[in-house]
Amino acid sequence: MVTSRDNTLLKDLRKLSQDNTGYRKQGRIWLEGDHLCRAALARGFKPAVGVFCESFWPVAPTEWAQAAIKTIVIPDALMADISGLESPARMGFVLDLPAPVALAPGAASLILDRVQDAGNVGSMLRSAAAFGFSQVIALRGTAALWSPKVLRAGMGAHFALQLVEGLAPEDLDALTVPLLVTSSHQGFFLHQQALPMPCAWAMGHEGQGVGDALMTRASLKVRIDQPGGEESLNVAAAAAICLYASSLALTRA
Amino acid sequence: MVTSRDNTLLKDLRKLSQDNTGYRKQGRIWLEGDHLCRAALARGFKPAVGVFCESFWPVAPTEWAQAAIKTIVIPDALMADISGLESPARMGFVLDLPAPVALAPGAASLILDRVQDAGNVGSMLRSAAAFGFSQVIALRGTAALWSPKVLRAGMGAHFALQLVEGLAPEDLDALTVPLLVTSSHQGFFLHQQALPMPCAWAMGHEGQGVGDALMTRASLKVRIDQPGGEESLNVAAAAAICLYASSLALTRA
Repeated sequence: MVTSRDNTLLKDLRKLSQDNTGYRKQGRIWLEGDHLCRAALARGFKPAVGVFCESFWPVAPTEWAQAAIKTIVIPDALMADISGLESPARMGFVLDLPAPVALAPGAASLILDRVQDAGNVGSMLRSAAAFGFSQVIALRGTAALWSPKVLRAGMGAHFALQLVEGLAPEDLDALTVPLLVTSSHQGFFLHQQALPMPCAWAMGHEGQGVGDALMTRASLKVRIDQPGGEESLNVAAAAAICLYASSLALTRA
Repeated sequence: MVTSRDNTLLKDLRKLSQDNTGYRKQGRIWLEGDHLCRAALARGFKPAVGVFCESFWPVAPTEWAQAAIKTIVIPDALMADISGLESPARMGFVLDLPAPVALAPGAASLILDRVQDAGNVGSMLRSAAAFGFSQVIALRGTAALWSPKVLRAGMGAHFALQLVEGLAPEDLDALTVPLLVTSSHQGFFLHQQALPMPCAWAMGHEGQGVGDALMTRASLKVRIDQPGGEESLNVAAAAAICLYASSLALTRA
């Protein structure tokens, strides 16, 4: 039982919870709430610390109570103090940040080129996991993948993926799979195009789209037919359509 | 030139900008920033008030400076005070809220069943407009469609759509187009299914999905094949895939 707001662990947790890139300094991530914690356990992750609200601890399921190497119980008010949520969760796990992995050159991949919005990034991680894209590559300038907001929006997809952060466009030259981009103005329509699989789909900045460094490296530029007019799509919506189309190409092959 | 923070118009603007449902009380909406304002003008909307930062006013394009019935210029600090954004825009328009419209029974429609997140709702409005779904129907409990956050996420799609808010599930009985829903566990795969068009796609609450009242009214339940596994899709990602699939059915017909 920890009751002091000044406890070192709780201070670290507050930073993890409130600082998007705090995990890089601490080498740990903060998973708040049942859903994320369950997703991590289901994928075989072993939490370093379990943190439980005093009011929840007596009724917490055994598999959670015993999941972490170390477990602490804190007053509900302290959990609210740590939490980044309007409705603080009743429990959370601290996880060691997975060790950095090298780029897998032949893996079906989603490349994020300076995507800014945490909700968009999280949504795209979910789509990648759902459609069999096992690797997500975040170029420098993309929202921090293990930040609390992206973790929440990812709903556990993080734990099903190989995540590579902080690459430069030239690092993508190591990929052996073809690089695909969408463009509003160039290329064939997605639905009329035979799609290679595995491949790497690149999705770009919300305002500026995919940068020139990737455009020039692309094997294939396609556009999504929009019979309703010139409205642009949200980047995570476009990603969902492209990743789904590629997964169908594989199903049908 | 208005310089007092207590000016009635500015007080109203602050409320519009910071209160998600303020537009219902005031009967007006606040469009902040170039992109939204341009989208409204392009669709023929006539702003009631144009609001310009002092620093931007001398260089504002004539078509903006003359667009509104009334125009005011305010110190940059007052714009920051009104703004809901981290980087306040240099101009904005106040628009009369479009008059409520009746449900169009035969229109290709997107139904939002208690969707909570403003980013998701805005993304779905963009997808609806892009894929030729001219009507969006928000059931009670859905995020307020004309709130500043949904307006921003919608990127102008609001002005290309017929929006109907505050309906109950039984109001949908007036629709003459078939009601389609997605389900993780029931129905045919989307890509193996002939899709009727026009139709009405229903998308549900981020946690609970589409409610029973809509499930029982559905003509067709389909699921999106997810070869990557059991990860769930973000609701706006699922909507993009479904609306796109329907628009292709029309293109190919």
